Amino acid sequence: MPETRQAREAWKQWRVVAKVDPDKPLSPSQVAGLAASGVDAVVLGGTQGITRAKVAAAHALLVPTGLPLAVEVSTAEAIVPDIDLFLVPVVLNALDVRWITGAHQAVALALRGHLDWSRVAAEGYIVLNPASAVARLTSARSPLAPEEAAAYAEVGVRVLGQPLIYLEYSGAYGSPDVVRACRQALSGTGARLFYGGGIATPEQAAEMAAVADTIVIGNLVQSPDHARLAEVVAAARRAGE
Amino acid sequence: MPETRQAREAWKQWRVVAKVDPDKPLSPSQVAGLAASGVDAVVLGGTQGITRAKVAAAHALLVPTGLPLAVEVSTAEAIVPDIDLFLVPVVLNALDVRWITGAHQAVALALRGHLDWSRVAAEGYIVLNPASAVARLTSARSPLAPEEAAAYAEVGVRVLGQPLIYLEYSGAYGSPDVVRACRQALSGTGARLFYGGGIATPEQAAEMAAVADTIVIGNLVQSPDHARLAEVVAAARRAGE
Repeated sequence: MPETRQAREAWKQWRVVAKVDPDKPLSPSQVAGLAASGVDAVVLGGTQGITRAKVAAAHALLVPTGLPLAVEVSTAEAIVPDIDLFLVPVVLNALDVRWITGAHQAVALALRGHLDWSRVAAEGYIVLNPASAVARLTSARSPLAPEEAAAYAEVGVRVLGQPLIYLEYSGAYGSPDVVRACRQALSGTGARLFYGGGIATPEQAAEMAAVADTIVIGNLVQSPDHARLAEVVAAARRAGE
Repeated sequence: MPETRQAREAWKQWRVVAKVDPDKPLSPSQVAGLAASGVDAVVLGGTQGITRAKVAAAHALLVPTGLPLAVEVSTAEAIVPDIDLFLVPVVLNALDVRWITGAHQAVALALRGHLDWSRVAAEGYIVLNPASAVARLTSARSPLAPEEAAAYAEVGVRVLGQPLIYLEYSGAYGSPDVVRACRQALSGTGARLFYGGGIATPEQAAEMAAVADTIVIGNLVQSPDHARLAEVVAAARRAGE
């Protein structure tokens, strides 16, 4: 089914995506703002309080937007039916193996023979905000100097076969130097570079979008200022042209 | 350079390989026995006492055999010039991140910009003999039930992009049930399955070669009984026909 495969590889074309936390449901007005914002897709993902019911509810709320929807699988609870794409994080700088191989092996064991791997894409995460919940949860080695982060990116793509590297600053605006160093390390590999964290202005969106392939917008989705969200998305999109 | 690329992907055709520990140098008689044994290649690799000088010496000793030579990089000391293929183990069931991402990131950082990734292939290791030095070193979660090992194999290939899974029993003859479960988990993925550990008889070689793609022969290479080594290699080769 080439159309399905095409749909499942469509993430490689994403330029700006919104991340929505299933633990923080969007209001109808926020859903409308998101639908009109110009993002390429929505990723459902969060660190805390994720349950199957919340993921299914968030998904149902977003289906009417017509946007491509993906779910980031931080726990087996995030695996709900009717999802086209599951993004599975591998936290490259975790010091706890649970977030690199452990949880993944447990899920593969629990679901053996019932997992449709064609709907799964791995994400090589680098968790860069030491104050964030995800950094504490995964015992992430952070902060990292640009060359240290770049070495993780290189290992993620070259040794661990990750098709994308996701630089996650979790609510804080990150270091363009780190993003640039990772960009350089991935040069010629074909892997995509995602940036997420603290983008609140068109200037920030433009700065990160000039270096990363894909910009992830998080908290701003919850803002009542829909015009601001659309401006930020437009700025990210222009930066790559 | 298609010829070079072809040479570097030749490991995918290996049916029987010998593993030689650089810390236990071969005698001229053992080198001659190995050259006449019928193996497809030699992998230099060990867990303890690896130094650049020992790897270079073992390599120099084996060049005259004309066999393809690869080096397993368990430490940065194993990175010596003039090697066609570096095999980089990722220990899927390690509970210490050093053996999944840590040492790899440190080497990528130390050598940044100077690493020829086209000469590197990753190996998804599953360390299965809890009494072995490598199991202690890596804090490997073992022993594993067949379905637990198979789930690691599945994660190794599907999530961590490993082109081969290496079941390592380190001197002890392993469980055909574990090998079969991993074989089944890899069905349709194109990944190669390596088995290594305790093969001392043609019967053992045949049993494991009937399930795994590639059989690794270790201690037997050190035996003075060269005829036995050649019989074991021949038995492994026949099992696949």
